[in-house]
Amino acid sequence: MKSDNLEKQINNLADRAKEASFLLLNTSQEKVDKCLITISELLDSKKEQILEANKKDIKLAKEKKLSQPMIERLTLSDKAFNSMKEGLKIVAGLPSPVGSIFDERKRPNGLNIYKMRVPIGVIAIIYESRPNVTIDAASLCLKSRNSVILRGGSEAFLTNKALANIICEACKICELPVNSVQLIPTTERRAIDLLLKKEDKIDLVIPRGGEGLIKTVVEKSHIPVIKHYKGVCHVFVSRYADMNKAIPIVINAKTQRPAVCNAMETLLIDKELSYENKKKIIDELLNNNVTIFGDKEIKKFSSLIKPATKEDWYAEYLDLRLAVKTLNGIEEAIEHINTYGSHHTDAIVTESQEEAEKFLQLVDSSSVMINASTRFSDGGEYGMGAEIGISTDKLHARGPMGITELTTYKWIVKGNGQIRT
Amino acid sequence: MKSDNLEKQINNLADRAKEASFLLLNTSQEKVDKCLITISELLDSKKEQILEANKKDIKLAKEKKLSQPMIERLTLSDKAFNSMKEGLKIVAGLPSPVGSIFDERKRPNGLNIYKMRVPIGVIAIIYESRPNVTIDAASLCLKSRNSVILRGGSEAFLTNKALANIICEACKICELPVNSVQLIPTTERRAIDLLLKKEDKIDLVIPRGGEGLIKTVVEKSHIPVIKHYKGVCHVFVSRYADMNKAIPIVINAKTQRPAVCNAMETLLIDKELSYENKKKIIDELLNNNVTIFGDKEIKKFSSLIKPATKEDWYAEYLDLRLAVKTLNGIEEAIEHINTYGSHHTDAIVTESQEEAEKFLQLVDSSSVMINASTRFSDGGEYGMGAEIGISTDKLHARGPMGITELTTYKWIVKGNGQIRT
Repeated sequence: MKSDNLEKQINNLADRAKEASFLLLNTSQEKVDKCLITISELLDSKKEQILEANKKDIKLAKEKKLSQPMIERLTLSDKAFNSMKEGLKIVAGLPSPVGSIFDERKRPNGLNIYKMRVPIGVIAIIYESRPNVTIDAASLCLKSRNSVILRGGSEAFLTNKALANIICEACKICELPVNSVQLIPTTERRAIDLLLKKEDKIDLVIPRGGEGLIKTVVEKSHIPVIKHYKGVCHVFVSRYADMNKAIPIVINAKTQRPAVCNAMETLLIDKELSYENKKKIIDELLNNNVTIFGDKEIKKFSSLIKPATKEDWYAEYLDLRLAVKTLNGIEEAIEHINTYGSHHTDAIVTESQEEAEKFLQLVDSSSVMINASTRFSDGGEYGMGAEIGISTDKLHARGPMGITELTTYKWIVKGNGQIRT
Repeated sequence: MKSDNLEKQINNLADRAKEASFLLLNTSQEKVDKCLITISELLDSKKEQILEANKKDIKLAKEKKLSQPMIERLTLSDKAFNSMKEGLKIVAGLPSPVGSIFDERKRPNGLNIYKMRVPIGVIAIIYESRPNVTIDAASLCLKSRNSVILRGGSEAFLTNKALANIICEACKICELPVNSVQLIPTTERRAIDLLLKKEDKIDLVIPRGGEGLIKTVVEKSHIPVIKHYKGVCHVFVSRYADMNKAIPIVINAKTQRPAVCNAMETLLIDKELSYENKKKIIDELLNNNVTIFGDKEIKKFSSLIKPATKEDWYAEYLDLRLAVKTLNGIEEAIEHINTYGSHHTDAIVTESQEEAEKFLQLVDSSSVMINASTRFSDGGEYGMGAEIGISTDKLHARGPMGITELTTYKWIVKGNGQIRT
């Protein structure tokens, strides 16, 4: 098969990324941190240029009659702009995990063996319309000294290009490899297919976006993928719950920011909880404008409650809708969560140590919580400084992925002439 | 698309494996360890039955005129049989990583957050003819409380079935879930294709075998794969080498067991090493019956030396052949290794601290060694007790994979009613 121009372009891009990744191994952390600060400064001094590009993208999007939420995601508001700038400074100030050593052991033959934390190499990030991901993803990958290939949504192409140019300029100023951060220079869809076959040059792909995008990437990729699937998060209120904890947790998990992946989507209530306590929870939810889809028992509490179907147990509403189910104790709750959930974040409210222990042992999710709101499932809240997403995968990184999760390790073996016998 | 019988069979098998994985979360480590010992005892008491099955496989293989090395790999020798039995006892005696906690942190809001080591879930192992892998893989997966789906080579089908029956019997005796270990009950190739699409039930696939098998699995799998590719391992003898270390290391790395992945395949020699020292190395290799493929400078040392072509720098010979190249110092050596190597295991022989440091920073391999034979790259030698293979991947597990590498973690968040503001 003859390779066409696009194929050559992607091959060259991947080659350059791999080369840059080797150069980054030999680049000091000081230079990298200085580069992040420089990007932040350039964002300031070149704000007009960037907003100009963003306006053009928005104009094209309107001509193409893209939906209003899509145009909102595409728009670089002052808030989004400042958060990019501040994010860069925060990441620059975080300690670097690269070079740290762990799992050290001295062997009887005198070999000194340990693991050393190192960058993964080349990371490709495929994302949808929000252009701030260009800066956020690049900063985390650079901080962990990986080279990165970015492919944003086609509707944000000009904005992403303007941002990538700034990153490139900062790399030059701070003597980082110029190809440390590369944007795929085309909106052709086939570019992604070609990229996903470069398993000899690219070490990891992270798709950030809807389920459709992630599934396509997983199907086509020969490169390892870390998936950030949806969050169908549960709170289980046990018969042993303290209601002074249960009600604030339930309301917070659902209503504090319903559009995000760590918001509660299904509430499970122990049948043995008293009628009054059940009623308190339901009333409080209704008072907070939550639309409830409930099972038979829940429906009895109010005519406002709609009947739940099987689809509701799988649903990620991302708004003020909520599925509510009654269950016979903790075993049924665990089974429901492991069957219908998305293995993201699940919480129990209970004062029973035994129940809490069982819940955290048997619920198969990236974060399992006792007496706390699911909304805490987040890199910042876990003290990681910044996150590239919340992995719903089980390999390499589970839950919030920070800088450390963008690294791997190698084994170092130090000898004095040892041979194997 | 209507699903046929084979598809139903594979779906059911995957469902049962997932179910067993949840039951294993609730199974004590004592029971698991007792089960491993019981398998070992049953191997003894049912040895005749197993050897009977093995003889049938060998007879069929001979009728199909399979190659002699293939038949050898298929044959359960007394040595292979004892090593299965002893391996089980060793694994039973190892400490379990499941349940251990790490990365603990107390947050300003009072949340207590840590990671807990847990099984991965369901692991599929796809391997070639050696039937002892059935026992070795099952024991490591069980020890780490994963359920496992095994698919061995079709030529070992009857032997694998006999071994899987014994494992199943031991699971029953020791009250482990009966579907903890399942063998795919057919030799149809399409069963693998179907299995590799069960990403909702299977968490990890490990292919063990030749490059062709691994590539096919990577291309077809929707499930994360950890690859165990070939080992093109290097030793670089620097101008600063102590020859009393260099010569034993070179000879050991090449000749101690040439057929394995951590044997040296390419020797790199610093041009600045003295003529006498170069000659000593070459003579010693020739004295040890090594066939050398050398560059121009190396060819001068003996008429026995064959000319190396570019293919030799990529070659994994797995016998007493060796590629030898002279290079201008450590930078060229690192570049050669990162370009032509397989990122498995590479060693430098040097007395220069500066060179050693540079080598371990910049060589992009799973194991990087200073003044030691590449042959040490092995789970046993690293003190891991047992290994399922040597990962050439960068994600999740790199280098020797032991029991800990067959686990993942979840985040545990313990609160007292905290909500997010």
